[in-house]
This record gives sequence, structure tokens and C-alpha cells, in this order.
Amino acid sequence: MGYNIVQKILKEHLVSGSLVPGHEIAIKIDQTLTQDSTGTMAYLQFEAMGISRVKTKLSVAYVDHNMLQEGFENADDHKYIQTVASKHGIYFSRPGNGICHQVHLERFGVPGETLLGSDSHTPTNGALGMIAIGAGGLDVAVAMGGGPYYLIMPRVINVRLHGSLRPWVSAKDIILELLRRLTVKGGVGKIIEYSGDGIKTLTVPERATIANMGAELGATTSVFPSDEITRDFLNAQGRLKDWKLIEADEDAEYDEVIDIYLDKLEPLIAQPHSPDNVVKVKELEGLKVDQVAIGSCTNSSYMDMMKVAAILKGKTVHPDVSLVISPGSRQVFQMLAKNGALADMVAAGARILECACGPCIGMGQAPATNAVSIRTFNRNFEGRSGTKSAKVYLASPEVAATAAIYGCIKDPRIWGKEIQIRLPERFEINDNMIIPPSENPDEVEVVRGPNIKPFPSHEPLSEKLEGEVLLKVGDNITTDHIMPSNARLLPFRSNIPKLSEHCFEGVDPDFSKRAKEKGGGFIVGGANYGQGSSREHAALVPLYLGIKFVLAKSFARIHKANLINNGILPLTFVNEEDYDEISQGDVLVLDDAVAQVRSKDNIVIKNITKGKEIIANLDVSDRNRELLIAGGLLNYTSLSNR
Amino acid sequence: MGYNIVQKILKEHLVSGSLVPGHEIAIKIDQTLTQDSTGTMAYLQFEAMGISRVKTKLSVAYVDHNMLQEGFENADDHKYIQTVASKHGIYFSRPGNGICHQVHLERFGVPGETLLGSDSHTPTNGALGMIAIGAGGLDVAVAMGGGPYYLIMPRVINVRLHGSLRPWVSAKDIILELLRRLTVKGGVGKIIEYSGDGIKTLTVPERATIANMGAELGATTSVFPSDEITRDFLNAQGRLKDWKLIEADEDAEYDEVIDIYLDKLEPLIAQPHSPDNVVKVKELEGLKVDQVAIGSCTNSSYMDMMKVAAILKGKTVHPDVSLVISPGSRQVFQMLAKNGALADMVAAGARILECACGPCIGMGQAPATNAVSIRTFNRNFEGRSGTKSAKVYLASPEVAATAAIYGCIKDPRIWGKEIQIRLPERFEINDNMIIPPSENPDEVEVVRGPNIKPFPSHEPLSEKLEGEVLLKVGDNITTDHIMPSNARLLPFRSNIPKLSEHCFEGVDPDFSKRAKEKGGGFIVGGANYGQGSSREHAALVPLYLGIKFVLAKSFARIHKANLINNGILPLTFVNEEDYDEISQGDVLVLDDAVAQVRSKDNIVIKNITKGKEIIANLDVSDRNRELLIAGGLLNYTSLSNR
Repeated sequence: MGYNIVQKILKEHLVSGSLVPGHEIAIKIDQTLTQDSTGTMAYLQFEAMGISRVKTKLSVAYVDHNMLQEGFENADDHKYIQTVASKHGIYFSRPGNGICHQVHLERFGVPGETLLGSDSHTPTNGALGMIAIGAGGLDVAVAMGGGPYYLIMPRVINVRLHGSLRPWVSAKDIILELLRRLTVKGGVGKIIEYSGDGIKTLTVPERATIANMGAELGATTSVFPSDEITRDFLNAQGRLKDWKLIEADEDAEYDEVIDIYLDKLEPLIAQPHSPDNVVKVKELEGLKVDQVAIGSCTNSSYMDMMKVAAILKGKTVHPDVSLVISPGSRQVFQMLAKNGALADMVAAGARILECACGPCIGMGQAPATNAVSIRTFNRNFEGRSGTKSAKVYLASPEVAATAAIYGCIKDPRIWGKEIQIRLPERFEINDNMIIPPSENPDEVEVVRGPNIKPFPSHEPLSEKLEGEVLLKVGDNITTDHIMPSNARLLPFRSNIPKLSEHCFEGVDPDFSKRAKEKGGGFIVGGANYGQGSSREHAALVPLYLGIKFVLAKSFARIHKANLINNGILPLTFVNEEDYDEISQGDVLVLDDAVAQVRSKDNIVIKNITKGKEIIANLDVSDRNRELLIAGGLLNYTSLSNR
Repeated sequence: MGYNIVQKILKEHLVSGSLVPGHEIAIKIDQTLTQDSTGTMAYLQFEAMGISRVKTKLSVAYVDHNMLQEGFENADDHKYIQTVASKHGIYFSRPGNGICHQVHLERFGVPGETLLGSDSHTPTNGALGMIAIGAGGLDVAVAMGGGPYYLIMPRVINVRLHGSLRPWVSAKDIILELLRRLTVKGGVGKIIEYSGDGIKTLTVPERATIANMGAELGATTSVFPSDEITRDFLNAQGRLKDWKLIEADEDAEYDEVIDIYLDKLEPLIAQPHSPDNVVKVKELEGLKVDQVAIGSCTNSSYMDMMKVAAILKGKTVHPDVSLVISPGSRQVFQMLAKNGALADMVAAGARILECACGPCIGMGQAPATNAVSIRTFNRNFEGRSGTKSAKVYLASPEVAATAAIYGCIKDPRIWGKEIQIRLPERFEINDNMIIPPSENPDEVEVVRGPNIKPFPSHEPLSEKLEGEVLLKVGDNITTDHIMPSNARLLPFRSNIPKLSEHCFEGVDPDFSKRAKEKGGGFIVGGANYGQGSSREHAALVPLYLGIKFVLAKSFARIHKANLINNGILPLTFVNEEDYDEISQGDVLVLDDAVAQVRSKDNIVIKNITKGKEIIANLDVSDRNRELLIAGGLLNYTSLSNR
């Protein structure tokens, strides 16, 4: 039996377990990346491990999230990350050098290697034939320390792309089509491996758009072969030496197969407030648009930007539209500034933002009240834009730029003749904003600003867990709901006490106060609890507030791992009807907690208020059971090292 | 007797009074400008006047302050300003089109005309031979309605520039030298008129740098002749028709003369925390720098930017420095993007920000804790950068760019051969981001977001003013102290109740609470009270908090006018020693207030707590007395119109 690409790469990196879907495996991590909003905490955790130098092949610390810098906190964080990176063998990508995934693709990703990143869109580098996974900062810290990364072996889905895209239909439309078909839960527990003749028509940046938004499917990651197209891209980046051929065997097997006929696709658009709420652009034609935002790790490549510049050239942005453009990296920005494309954008009236995540993470450019915003980004959760009443749509750069000119949604095929942008033979290569680690690490002093607070303490599991249901929520609660992330809060990523005041504030403004008054308790959730951003703070903050377990219908993968890493039990209902029987305020008791967690039997929870028993499942590995008993990964790692 | 330029222009615009220093005059205003942070309120005030179309030759509404847009408030304000402008005959400069003073210089300023702007750096356009004055939003609203602008005729100071600047010495150094000599109080009650053979060596943008920072001297405005250099600039802007010759008569007289020998100047720098704390750059050589910020209405012209690009070209920004550059206008940005200079900046590692005020007003890029920041801006008041502990220095673009490369302060003459940047023969002219007013104003609907609150109510003066000294402060209190302006607060410029919570918060965090508890009261100040930004909110918010008078040693001009416009008495000590006799918490009484204000005698205030009398002076015109009795300018204007 032949191997698929996922199996080939994982096999080479397997530390323990076997590649059977549903079984826990541990894999060696070659590369790590962090961004600044999760990175500060990841490096505090790494420092807590007491290891002097990273044990990966390559670790890179990016700054791309908190770049508006409205107080000292952001600049302090950047300085901390720069100095801690220098001291511990980590490359530092300076603020202004670009969005982590875009820069990593350009300068660092290597086919066949594994990449663990503290950002949910880390799978972007699957475009190069890597296994690139988003994880919590703690997992990344452990990987930097040389520890393996544990995950449940996902099922491998083969998405076969056939034919080629018609003019004005783009890579974004391929992934929107997949989201339309599979929904935001459709990729949970799965890795998507792309194949078919259609992928030969897609450049690496186009593949990256697709791999990037695999995160929105809930997939563990997405991966493309490393082929001649990959070779051309790496060669144009001056990195031919990093290339190797990685393809599935002809007789490779998959757990599922999906076919997409590219010729049949049309320009698509995701409506508020979910990336899977996808319709054809032409169904929405004429809808008045107030803002257009182009960029983000999904669609900010040189080729995306050149297409946008070509559409804007010689035209004027509609008077009722604010058009903002953020190139994905300094490389992209420099090339656009050099070849005149940026001048065309500026002449049309585009506002050029820094090479950073920017509006995609609500870092500025919040739309007006009730505004319609068309964005080339990957997420359109309610309120994420910074404006609760805004209606955010996700679409390709072509669709977005067209809306900017017309002031309403229009099928971009109205322009007629296709814009042809070719991959440059040679990208502009200039790594002067990437600072290598110090050669004299002992001389580096790590600079810690006053907002950088210690990692919160983790207590071993108690024998008896007793408390109230502090909050009961429905399906598809995102990490944005649990721990909102916006320009106001991002500066406090390394200050958990401050952040805790805002936990669940959009869902229930009194939650934090109640949790503190009651001395902690429990959360009851619906299906797909914790979807969205990989935000570890969505577990760290509940831990700080005394949450002992979350009892839900099902969990999103990364959030479940984050709960475990922080010693919070992720319990699921054995009988989903029990969800309806629990009310907020009910007092629950979990007796003999250590024994129950250690045994693989179902867990019995008593609902004292209702006089009923709830049977829950703790679907985790033996290692995770010990980790939960120890009170989280850092305690467990410390215990193991004794 | 001949006339100087100030007299010539004022004479042509005189509505009442005579041009004798110290006498109140009223002048006709040809042009107005607003920016968004003061503009929202100015247009609410204009609307309150019930006039359908502005009566000026030209009124322009700019958006350059609140462009980070972290919540719906900013975008709502922009939409309000855009629609209210369209309806009432005002040109709208879209966000992204640049900083008001720079754009106005490029596209609108006309020699010989008067300009009133709701921004303290409005005098920038004095570079074109205009009388350009910064004022409160209410004054600008009245001017838009066709009312004259009242001011005390200033003394006219002739600053004669001799010779020419040596290489690496710039226009910024001329104004820093003047600040060094005169201090931030040195221009109070004065207009500065430049002459001498030295001005023939200065282009309009260089003159603009000098006129701009005349505001830091406390001057009413600064003015240059309109000569062949002005003609060349306007011609290069495609506006030759706007030019006319304006020169002082040969026998013109001045109230004072100051000589500056340009050949003798060296690169200068203003140290924290005042623009007049000026030393030679070489005295600070070697001081480690953490941040460099280039831009602002002071130094963001095409020529400034080209010099910076030439210094950065082929080099790399020091690893410990964050370099941010904000071009002053879309014209500048477009030209830099087109000619490759922007690519050189980006290649060196500069972070390019939007064409906006940005870090100059604390709108992002707050330095790290204790950081040293070199800025080409006009103000370095403590905390204005967004970081209380930061140390901000003001210098020329040449000095700033040099520091960015070296990572420390260095005299730029180290580079050797001078950089020669010539005024372009033709600027890139593209006004597609300036939206003319509607031709069908009845059809325009003014859009008001939920954060746009009504103008606070103004009550006529009571017969008896009684209350506590709620706060006693020292000399040189700025409007930044009174009503802090930062990224967090700027969105609330049209929401006075919200802003009031932050009044004086840096000086005394309990002030606002105390004022509300006590139902208002009084403020005691030192010399030069209310210097700095023209911020009308520094009067509107105290009004809202029930402040009836401010008793100080002396007042900054614009703030005094703002107090009067809002019905707060600006009283000065007749005997400055009395200042020492008053304590915070003392109960004061001003009896027969209406009669005392109407009479021109000194005003008697009883200090009940101390059992003493204080003699105060109300140095205002008869018109202002009636205006104070009416409870402010809007009430007065309404009464006059009955």
C-alpha cells in the first residue's frame, strides 16, 4: 500500500504512536513560529522550562499583531520578544517585516518538514508541502524545548482539484466552495491533502490561500505536494536548495475523497457572520459597500496585490467606500513600491496600511455602525472587526477591489479581459529585517516591561470538584467569544489578571465578576466549543478564573488541547439531551476526580440542584490524563523532569 | 508710513477695530479648515446655527487625526463629516488624503487671504503669505456662517533671516533656534513676520516648517511674503492663478525685530519635555535611541521625505530602533511610490504609516517604557506620545534619519556631502480624494452615528458664583493636561459626557469625580495656562463639569478664547502673590457676577476659607463681556439674531 503525503511526512517525524486515525501520536517538530500576541506568553513559558537554546532546526518570532501601539505595552512586548529570541537561538522578524505566515512561506518554509506555530493559520505553509499545525503557545514552547507535539492522528481527506479556474475566479473561491460544502465543522479531526491536475494551475501563493483557510474548516492542517511549481517558487525566493519533491504514491489511500471541478466555480463570497455562509457573488450584486479591506495572511501575496493594483489603476475608489490595503510582507511591499503598482493603488485613493494583520484581527479600521465591509480575510465572526453591528463579507481580492470601485458588490467578470499576473522570476530578496539570534547569548539581557506578568500558577487536580455552572452557552462558541481579542485587549496578552476582566464579555458581561465572586466553577457548552483562533488565552484566562471543567457537546481541536495543557477538563456529554437538563446556576459535583480522570470509564457528575446524574466522557490519551491530574503541561513537564 | 505684510492683509479683511496692538479687531475669514477630531464638534455647532451653506470663499473638512479606527466611533465621525460637508458647501478631504495643513498648502492656500482652522497648527499656511490662525471649533463654525473672527491685535515681530543654511542644517533648526531664544511663551500676543535675504533660500515647504512651529512659540500666527518662490511652488502645484505678490513696504514698521544668521546655525534638537528645551545635536551625540518617527504637519513634505529616503538608501535601520515614516499627504506618498524613494525607505526597514497625524498626536506608535524617541514633530509634551515614561526629542528629518541608522543621536554632518533635493517642476496633481460639496444639498442626508452627542448646554452667567477651588496647578499647563488627547479618547470628541471622565486625569485622577460631587467650582492656574493644542474640548469639558472661572497668572491665547466662547471667565491675578495664598479646597465667592463682568473694573473674589479678598482682572473686550454674561458664543449669537 502506498502512502499519501501526510503519512509520508508524519512517518518521518513519528516519535510515538501509529498513524491510525483517532490514535494519539507524537511528532518531532522541525520549525516553530510565534506571533507577538501569543508569542510573549509562549516565551514566558519557554523561559519557565529553563532551557538555554531552542532545539528545533529553526524557530522564528514574528511581530505582526500588535503594531498600532497605543501604549507602552506593545513596544515593550516587541522588545521582550526581540531580546528573549536573541538569547535563546530564535530568529526575530521585526515589526514591519510582515505577517508571519506570508514571511515564513517566502523565507523559511521547507517541503517535508514539520512546523508548529502559535497561530491558527499556521497551516498556510502547507502550501509548500509541510505539515504545518497551529497550536497553543505552550505546545510551541515545549516544541522549542525539543519535546514532541502530541495530537490525535487525523483522518486524511483527499481534495482533488480538476481542470482550471476561469477568468476572475481565484484560489479564494476554491476554499470558499469547500467551506460552502463542508461548513466550519467539516474539517474537524481531519487533514486535507490536495491533489489532481488542477493543482498544477495554482502557484504557491494561491495554494497558500487555500491551505490558510483550511483552518476555517476546522481542519488540523492542509497540505499540497511539493512539485515543480513549489520548486519555481523557492527558486524565485533564492531557496532552490530547500526544495525536494514530495508527492503521494500513486496507490496512496485516503479516508475520504472530495472532487472540485475548477472550471465550474464562480466568484464566491461568505456572508456574515461565518466563513461557511457562502453564496455566489452575483447573488449579492448591488449590495452597497462601505469599506473594503484587502490583505491578511489569506490574500496578501505579491500576486494578489498586483491584481488589485491592475484593477485600481487609473480609477478612483468610490466616494462612499474606505479602501484599505495591507501588503502581506515587506518583500511584497518593497516590490510594489519599486514597480509602480503601489503608486497606482495610492493614486486610486487606497489607504495603505502596514504589512501586518491589521483589520483582520480588529487591529484598527473598525467599520462604521451597521457598515458593510468586504474583506479578503479568513474570518467574519460577529464583532471581530471591532464593530458589533458591522456586516463583514469574505471574498477574493478581485471581488474586493471591484466593490471598492463600484461602491457595491459586483461580479468582477464585469471587467472583461482577465488580468494575467505571473510569478516573478526572482522575488526581491532582502532579509535585513530578520535578526539572527545572538552569537553571544550570555551577553543578551532580556528586557521585561512592567506589563509582562508571570505565567499564572497551575494547581494539581483536586479530589472533589464542586461549584456552579457559571455560564451555559450554545453551539459554535469561538475563542473570540471566550477571550475577546481586539485592539484594546491585545496589549494585555501577557497580563492575565487584566485580561480576565473581559472573559466572555460579549456573551455575558457579568461572567468575570460572577466567576471571581463564586471562586470559580464550570462552563457548559454546545457543539464545536472553542472554534476559531488558536488563542491559548481562551484557556489560560478561564483557568485564572477558577474554571475546573468545560462540559460541552463537542470541542474544537486546538482549544481542547489548550484546555488540557492548562489543566481544565474538556468533558463531553455522553447523552446530548443532558445538555438541555442543565441550567446556569446549577451546582455540580465531580467526586473522586483524580481516580475518575485516570480511569478510562465515563465520568459521573452530580447535578445537585436538579438531583440528576450526568454521564460525561473524557476523550483524551493516557498521557493527557496524567497531565490533567498534574494541573497542566508545565507542571507535568516539570514532574517528568524531576 | 509703510505697511508690513500682517497689516496689509488684516487691513483688507478688517470688519471692526483698528490695527493697534492690544485692541480687539474683527476680521473677515476667507477660508476655513477643520480636522476630524475638532471638526465633528465644529459642524455640530455650525448645524446649531441653522445656516444652510457656508459663507466663506472656501471651507475644507479634513480627516487626519482619528484614522486608526479601533471602534465604530471614528468611521461614524468620518461619515458624519463627509455628509455634513456635502450638505453645507464644504469640500471633504477623505481619510488617506493627508494631513490638513500639508494638503491645504498644496491644494488650497492662497496668498493674501485669511484662513481660520480648528487646529493649532493652522499657521502652517502662513508659508504662502496668508494670515492663517488656529482657533476653537466654535470660532470656525461662526466663520463658516459668515461671522467675523475676533482677536486682540497682536504685536508684529519681524524675524530677519540672513545668509543661507550650511549643509545638513535645515528649516527645522531655524525654528528650534527661535524657540531656544524666545521659549514657548515668547510668541504670545504676537505675529511673526519673516523677512531678510535668508528667506529667498527657503522653499515654501521649508517656510511651512517654520510657520508651523510658530505655534510652539505661542504666536498668533507666522507669515512669509508671497514672492517668486511662492509663485514657483504654486506653479508646480498647477495653481499659478492663485499667486500674487505680497511683500512688506520698504518702510514697514514692526513692534520688535529679531535677527537670525542662518550660516551660524547648527543642527539642533529639543529635549524632553518642551519644544524650547533646545541644544545642539552634537551635545547629545551617542545617546541611545529606541524609536524614530518622521512625519507630522511640521516635516512631512515631499522634500523632507526625499532627504530621508536619500539617507536611508542602501542602509539598514539599526536593530534597536523602530523607524516609522508618515508622508504628509497623498500627493507626497504617490510621488514617493512612483519615483522609487518609498522603495528605498522600505528596503532600509522603515515602517510606512498612513498619511496622517499618527504618532504626533499619540495615535499609535507609543514608545516602549523609558524609551528615547526622536521625532520630526512639533511637540514633545510629557505623555503625548502615549507613553508617560518616554523621552521625546524634536529634530529635523536629517537628524532623525541619521539616528535611525546609527541607533543613537549623531550630528548628521557625519554623512559629508550634502543631499540636494530640488522642488519638483510639477507636483503630482490628483484631487480625486477631495470630494466637492453636493450640487443638490437637499438630497444629502447627514449620517449621525450613536456616539455623536449634542453640543452641551450653556447657561447664562449667575448672579453669584460660589464653590471650591477644585484644582490648583502650576505654570505652563497645556490643553493636553486639561483634556488629554490620545488614541483611547479621540474617538469620543463628540461625546462630552464620556470625555469628562478623563479631564485633568494625568494631573489629578480624582478631579473629574470631585468636580461632579461638588457640582462644579473653580480652577487656579499659573502662567501660560492652556498652552499647546487649540483643543476646544479643554473648555467644553470643564464647562460640562461646572467650572465657572479659571483664575490664573496668564492664559495662552487660543485657550482663553475657548474659555470665553464657552462662558467660563478667564480671570488673572492682579497681584501674582495671591496665587500662593490660595489652596485647593478653598471656598471662593464672586458676588454680583453680571455687574462685575460688565464693568471694566477689577473683579473682587472672596476667599471664604482664608478670609481674604483676591483682586482679579478680566482682560476681555466689551463684546466678550456680553458673551460671557450670555453664557458663551452660541447663546450670544442666538441672542444677537433674535
